[in-house]
Amino acid sequence: MRELERLPFEDLGFARLDHHRALRRGFPEVVFGLGKTPEQVATIVERLAMLQDRVLVTRTTQEALARVQERVPDAVYHDAARLIVVDRRRDAPKFPGVAVLCAGTADLPVAEEAAMTAELMDCAVERIYDVGVAGLHRLLSQLDKLRKARVLVVVAGMEGALPSVVSGLVAAPVIAVPTSIGYGTSFNGVTALLSMMNSCSPGVSVVNIDNGFGAGYLAATILRAGQPEG
Amino acid sequence: MRELERLPFEDLGFARLDHHRALRRGFPEVVFGLGKTPEQVATIVERLAMLQDRVLVTRTTQEALARVQERVPDAVYHDAARLIVVDRRRDAPKFPGVAVLCAGTADLPVAEEAAMTAELMDCAVERIYDVGVAGLHRLLSQLDKLRKARVLVVVAGMEGALPSVVSGLVAAPVIAVPTSIGYGTSFNGVTALLSMMNSCSPGVSVVNIDNGFGAGYLAATILRAGQPEG
Amino acid sequence: MRELERLPFEDLGFARLDHHRALRRGFPEVVFGLGKTPEQVATIVERLAMLQDRVLVTRTTQEALARVQERVPDAVYHDAARLIVVDRRRDAPKFPGVAVLCAGTADLPVAEEAAMTAELMDCAVERIYDVGVAGLHRLLSQLDKLRKARVLVVVAGMEGALPSVVSGLVAAPVIAVPTSIGYGTSFNGVTALLSMMNSCSPGVSVVNIDNGFGAGYLAATILRAGQPEG
Amino acid sequence: MRELERLPFEDLGFARLDHHRALRRGFPEVVFGLGKTPEQVATIVERLAMLQDRVLVTRTTQEALARVQERVPDAVYHDAARLIVVDRRRDAPKFPGVAVLCAGTADLPVAEEAAMTAELMDCAVERIYDVGVAGLHRLLSQLDKLRKARVLVVVAGMEGALPSVVSGLVAAPVIAVPTSIGYGTSFNGVTALLSMMNSCSPGVSVVNIDNGFGAGYLAATILRAGQPEG
Amino acid sequence: MRELERLPFEDLGFARLDHHRALRRGFPEVVFGLGKTPEQVATIVERLAMLQDRVLVTRTTQEALARVQERVPDAVYHDAARLIVVDRRRDAPKFPGVAVLCAGTADLPVAEEAAMTAELMDCAVERIYDVGVAGLHRLLSQLDKLRKARVLVVVAGMEGALPSVVSGLVAAPVIAVPTSIGYGTSFNGVTALLSMMNSCSPGVSVVNIDNGFGAGYLAATILRAGQPEG
Amino acid sequence: MRELERLPFEDLGFARLDHHRALRRGFPEVVFGLGKTPEQVATIVERLAMLQDRVLVTRTTQEALARVQERVPDAVYHDAARLIVVDRRRDAPKFPGVAVLCAGTADLPVAEEAAMTAELMDCAVERIYDVGVAGLHRLLSQLDKLRKARVLVVVAGMEGALPSVVSGLVAAPVIAVPTSIGYGTSFNGVTALLSMMNSCSPGVSVVNIDNGFGAGYLAATILRAGQPEG
Amino acid sequence: MRELERLPFEDLGFARLDHHRALRRGFPEVVFGLGKTPEQVATIVERLAMLQDRVLVTRTTQEALARVQERVPDAVYHDAARLIVVDRRRDAPKFPGVAVLCAGTADLPVAEEAAMTAELMDCAVERIYDVGVAGLHRLLSQLDKLRKARVLVVVAGMEGALPSVVSGLVAAPVIAVPTSIGYGTSFNGVTALLSMMNSCSPGVSVVNIDNGFGAGYLAATILRAGQPEG
Amino acid sequence: MRELERLPFEDLGFARLDHHRALRRGFPEVVFGLGKTPEQVATIVERLAMLQDRVLVTRTTQEALARVQERVPDAVYHDAARLIVVDRRRDAPKFPGVAVLCAGTADLPVAEEAAMTAELMDCAVERIYDVGVAGLHRLLSQLDKLRKARVLVVVAGMEGALPSVVSGLVAAPVIAVPTSIGYGTSFNGVTALLSMMNSCSPGVSVVNIDNGFGAGYLAATILRAGQPEG
Repeated sequence: MRELERLPFEDLGFARLDHHRALRRGFPEVVFGLGKTPEQVATIVERLAMLQDRVLVTRTTQEALARVQERVPDAVYHDAARLIVVDRRRDAPKFPGVAVLCAGTADLPVAEEAAMTAELMDCAVERIYDVGVAGLHRLLSQLDKLRKARVLVVVAGMEGALPSVVSGLVAAPVIAVPTSIGYGTSFNGVTALLSMMNSCSPGVSVVNIDNGFGAGYLAATILRAGQPEG
Repeated sequence: MRELERLPFEDLGFARLDHHRALRRGFPEVVFGLGKTPEQVATIVERLAMLQDRVLVTRTTQEALARVQERVPDAVYHDAARLIVVDRRRDAPKFPGVAVLCAGTADLPVAEEAAMTAELMDCAVERIYDVGVAGLHRLLSQLDKLRKARVLVVVAGMEGALPSVVSGLVAAPVIAVPTSIGYGTSFNGVTALLSMMNSCSPGVSVVNIDNGFGAGYLAATILRAGQPEG
Repeated sequence: MRELERLPFEDLGFARLDHHRALRRGFPEVVFGLGKTPEQVATIVERLAMLQDRVLVTRTTQEALARVQERVPDAVYHDAARLIVVDRRRDAPKFPGVAVLCAGTADLPVAEEAAMTAELMDCAVERIYDVGVAGLHRLLSQLDKLRKARVLVVVAGMEGALPSVVSGLVAAPVIAVPTSIGYGTSFNGVTALLSMMNSCSPGVSVVNIDNGFGAGYLAATILRAGQPEG
Repeated sequence: MRELERLPFEDLGFARLDHHRALRRGFPEVVFGLGKTPEQVATIVERLAMLQDRVLVTRTTQEALARVQERVPDAVYHDAARLIVVDRRRDAPKFPGVAVLCAGTADLPVAEEAAMTAELMDCAVERIYDVGVAGLHRLLSQLDKLRKARVLVVVAGMEGALPSVVSGLVAAPVIAVPTSIGYGTSFNGVTALLSMMNSCSPGVSVVNIDNGFGAGYLAATILRAGQPEG
Repeated sequence: MRELERLPFEDLGFARLDHHRALRRGFPEVVFGLGKTPEQVATIVERLAMLQDRVLVTRTTQEALARVQERVPDAVYHDAARLIVVDRRRDAPKFPGVAVLCAGTADLPVAEEAAMTAELMDCAVERIYDVGVAGLHRLLSQLDKLRKARVLVVVAGMEGALPSVVSGLVAAPVIAVPTSIGYGTSFNGVTALLSMMNSCSPGVSVVNIDNGFGAGYLAATILRAGQPEG
Repeated sequence: MRELERLPFEDLGFARLDHHRALRRGFPEVVFGLGKTPEQVATIVERLAMLQDRVLVTRTTQEALARVQERVPDAVYHDAARLIVVDRRRDAPKFPGVAVLCAGTADLPVAEEAAMTAELMDCAVERIYDVGVAGLHRLLSQLDKLRKARVLVVVAGMEGALPSVVSGLVAAPVIAVPTSIGYGTSFNGVTALLSMMNSCSPGVSVVNIDNGFGAGYLAATILRAGQPEG
Repeated sequence: MRELERLPFEDLGFARLDHHRALRRGFPEVVFGLGKTPEQVATIVERLAMLQDRVLVTRTTQEALARVQERVPDAVYHDAARLIVVDRRRDAPKFPGVAVLCAGTADLPVAEEAAMTAELMDCAVERIYDVGVAGLHRLLSQLDKLRKARVLVVVAGMEGALPSVVSGLVAAPVIAVPTSIGYGTSFNGVTALLSMMNSCSPGVSVVNIDNGFGAGYLAATILRAGQPEG
Repeated sequence: MRELERLPFEDLGFARLDHHRALRRGFPEVVFGLGKTPEQVATIVERLAMLQDRVLVTRTTQEALARVQERVPDAVYHDAARLIVVDRRRDAPKFPGVAVLCAGTADLPVAEEAAMTAELMDCAVERIYDVGVAGLHRLLSQLDKLRKARVLVVVAGMEGALPSVVSGLVAAPVIAVPTSIGYGTSFNGVTALLSMMNSCSPGVSVVNIDNGFGAGYLAATILRAGQPEG
């Protein structure tokens, strides 16, 4: 408790930066881009980049990047994944064990958001894309890779059946990510989410629709849960 | 139109019996048991049994059966499937081609409702039960039977993934039946239904939750669609 | 199983093409356009068109067509139905028996998507449009055509009552397609879908909202279910 | 306004009786039985029966009746319609023009609730039951009766298609009453209600699920709207 | 039935015009503009205007009007109400008895849609606008006008409380029209609709969200229900 | 923060009693009865009653009371309000200013739960019951009492219109409590809640369905907000 | 009642201005901008500004401001809060006791809407922003300010957990404001609203999603509830 | 693939036992009790107990236990957790690192289901119960235990805020389990689930409502993900 009380943060007026987070949670504060003005994003990134060797902004825009790069020129935008990344580490070691799967080509942006987040958190990622259940042999041909993974992120829209099928084939935990791909009763991903929630195969948990970042982050913390220093 | 105008029915006050249905639709009127009193069911079955060689009551109860049997002693109740059946035909020929699958043991009553309905409508039914996607090899071991079917009824609760997977393996039409098996966000079958609606594999259509009767009926009409006399 | 294992597919990185599908399912892989970039669509179509005599892209755009035509000049876009079609067969025989109905003029694009899909799958299609239940005589005047069909696709928005009424008049299976036509509590087609799901007339099954393609595909597989070679 | 201010009511502590309602609204206060204890119902009925020649209690129970009859011996319970009625008028004239239709036998209790309410409000009621759209000829055979009605109450569960079809055949206003009959995605009548709300035929309005009383009451006020004294 | 069979309609390919509707339903066919192309609307209006003295198009656009006026120059567009009207009658008599109320200024377009529809159907309309329940005295000052009406259309968004309050003050039937005005949990009018559905005051029925046309149409049929020739 | 750290609580294994709550929040910990076994409730009440002069258990049962009274004989059960109360204060002063209104007799139990909670928290409560909007004069006759209140709790089911109307008449804050009274589309109180959420009159906030306790508690804290010592 | 009857309002045709509201409710009529044309807003503001020293327009636009300023040049637009304000009072005293908290930077516009509304109603407001529960120490560092407040407005999107946590730390009433910040299953603020509705800490009530104005207004009435003159 | 093909299972007619699961997934097949008859459960347990040293049945009943114990006398029923357990291992080593938290006493059964499942899967479990966010100091006093855990299962009903708060304090992954505890808008746990889905703190994933088993299973697989042999 005493520790908690002394935690440092910095008040920018519209935001309080949590500089202690890397210590407390093992990864520096991530900037949630949604609902922030480009100017606010730029101010936050600039300040964080002074104190951290990595900065991650999620759900952001090209417009925000423009403002960020005026102040932090080495910031990079990953289009499909909607991420701004500053990464000043060199040759950071990557720990293997994360596999990211997606059911269809249209799920790729969310899968990339997950994969890139995990990579920024020191994971080596195996990508296995377009292996939806309508053509089962495409998935079954990857069985060896699936079984080698220590944690699997499985991204799917529409009926969201892939995580159940994958989980039935492996012993490792599966993080299911519903995507908003679909139409009509896909309800922007709600159907996929509900389907994943009701997986008949235990060992599956679910994050919010299109939340590739959250899945990648969680995969990294799971991988780390097994490291010597936790 | 003129034909329509002359269609006979019989007014019991609380019900109008559609004696023409067998001609018009190829199968005599089916009695929907829900919301009818046992007395009403019994009166209707008695009247239909005078004119038809088969009577089917769906979603009914033991209590209704008791009243029916007082008047139609050869009526039989199928417990799990909640059906009352009168069948006075002898050695009616069965046309092969219908397969009924279910994902789990708990889906069995609905699967039986489908299978028995199709059988009463002159289909030979192949039953393939407890082949849910969490243990894919159980399903794949039945591949030959799946491919022989001309129409497949696939019954599943929870995440409802089985019809997508099955449909991806066969060329024949798949009728998906969601069941109310599950808890929490299964929402009494709604999740399974939505999942089936959003199948990434074309060739799947869906009937109401727990509507085994509807699926069996439809399977029989599809089988018949290919018969010489349609 | 051994067969499944050897199934060929082709990995484009962002997509795995299922070249075996025509054998397994009776129709080559269909490209689901939603969420794919025009470039991705074009690359897939180009590759498929090398190996198949027919290619179908659903839910696509004019923009995607432009990219496709640079590589596959004989690709055609059907505007209302949002389909890109490549069809190099000549005088392919059409099997009669599919009727496509719609309730109102606004349902026409979805009805066309169904009709054109079935036609590409070798069906001759009878179109019966604008026969909604508010003016019953318009429907009843088509009774002969309805009764000749071996499978009926019935497209309707708003209250979605047409499939129930049609099914009550025929013996053949009815595939109901809800459309997103309506406002307020039509909830973009959900009301029509629910209505169709609860049809008081057996023999009706339902596909996703605006899923004309799925209905047409299913109609063709049903028609084929009755062909000598299934 | 001054008039409103002087309106009389009587405070029973747990209820305020609106003795002015017959004047203001043309019908004495109706007792909504839901959530009231039998004792409360009995106290209210006793008091109203001292001042009015008619008392109506809706959504009530046999148990409440028992308590009521101790104090108002001529109170009558209508089982299916869940109504307690006190009617001390003799040979009250009935004005013709209300037709009550229902789609299936299971909708009968709600239809009776509507019919009996309208009768208590001086309407002569034509009952037309079990005329659902799956057997259209049953409805069409009643066309003459439908066209004679000045207002139609149409009761239906499941897909709720009957009001649209009826409204397309007549010029008079249609009051649609969804019932909770059905299962699965009928959602206890919500589907029927939504379907009725989206009728493609103008001239239809909707009351709450199973609200036979409300429909009967409204039909009577509509009939009265055309009487010389309004 | 025989009558029904002989009903005339005209097939435009994409639409079947129901020329018999004025006879059957008392008002010529109304054109539902939603989902129709401007060209389709224009073709239909042109054809109807040849045979009828009034044409009404609902939920239409300026763009459609432009196309219509090329062929039917006397067509008029009412902006707020989204109606195209052709009215070639002169000095048609108006029958008094319809009152249209709305709760707030923002509900005015829907109220106008109702009022103008009723006027086109020969009703004189009393408009009483911006009388929401937050300032009750504004409503109570109009009590005399309310009581003179034979049918009331009450339009409200947000919590949709106005119809209950109005219905408690009058004997005439109330048609409640929810509007999509509001934000957050108003859910585009669903809250207002549900509120109206559950009115504690009998004599209220509800039409679809923003369905001013339907309410005005229904009001006219109710008014007519009391005319000598019904 | 340091203060927070030292806060005392007592660990019973299945529960941690927050003995500091009276100091921190101005009222001792309230026991939420739902989901607790009678034995658990009794153990908690016994322990709290040793240290506090008042104990309140909400959403509890007769069965729990029996177990409680074995250990705390002066515990009292209030049936309709589902409260167990221990109150050992004598002649505690009551501060006036809380009015509790309800729309119908069926809302009375929730209203009593609110009133009794506020009374236990030192408020004098004015009860104004059965003043629903269908008979506005019943409410308007209480205008003086309404205007004297410093905070109003307004309880209503069905369409939940009462809080809007009341709020429009007074300057004081209104706490709206939806009840689960109703049927069909009342959705067990959801409609009333949504309606209250969308009140066109500012100054209204809402608590959970049937949460009389929460409303009474909040009313007491609001009244206290204006006391000299807050 | 007599008082109510004589209440003045002014009829602009499309709006009735409630000039009595300041007397009745303690604050002049607020203009709800949603769904009003700029012209309507301007006309209303102009008229109100003749009679009042403060005018507030909520949910409005830059475009409306332009029209307003032509007629009322001292009107000011607050961008994030979407408010137009006219305030001609000088040095109006502010009463302390309102704290406005928000969970994240993206919730700031709604928080400002609340704060500015309360300020216009004579409250001094303590702003405490970006104190979401993911970094608890940021909130706990503000404990002194929280405990000094007599009423707290707590604004949060996503999971909406902040009001529960804050309420557990203070004795004063908490007004929870859900915001539409989030994605996927945040359902535009519905999740935050439901979460707040189910707070395990009593003393919390909720207003509509993004309804900063309503929360600020309510906070002012609560503060006033404790003033000598109420 | 070849491996998959040879996987053994055993067909009981109503169920196919997946004897290979322990090898494939690291834990023998778990019996899902819901929807199975006691007889079916007993038959399955008997068969599994012949081949495995542990058997787990979830969501089962006392009645099922009775039938099981006739055949497998050492089966034990855990009441609150609804589990039947057969465990014939002696002194199986337990790996530390799983913490199970719950917000309230009523969440205890689900927490126990999680804890006991993890224990059966070789985890040592730290239980931290009744630490809901309304009394934050109860949670903060356990900070050391929280930080020692390698994976945390956090169980909560009502507003479901606990997982967000816990996740903000630790680096390890958090598995959130919503419970059906609550009333009204808690919607049987849906609100808690949505809240958890939208956690503002990354590192949280969610399982189905009341799915303690799934959470415990997943926690064990995560713990194992870090073991030398995965």
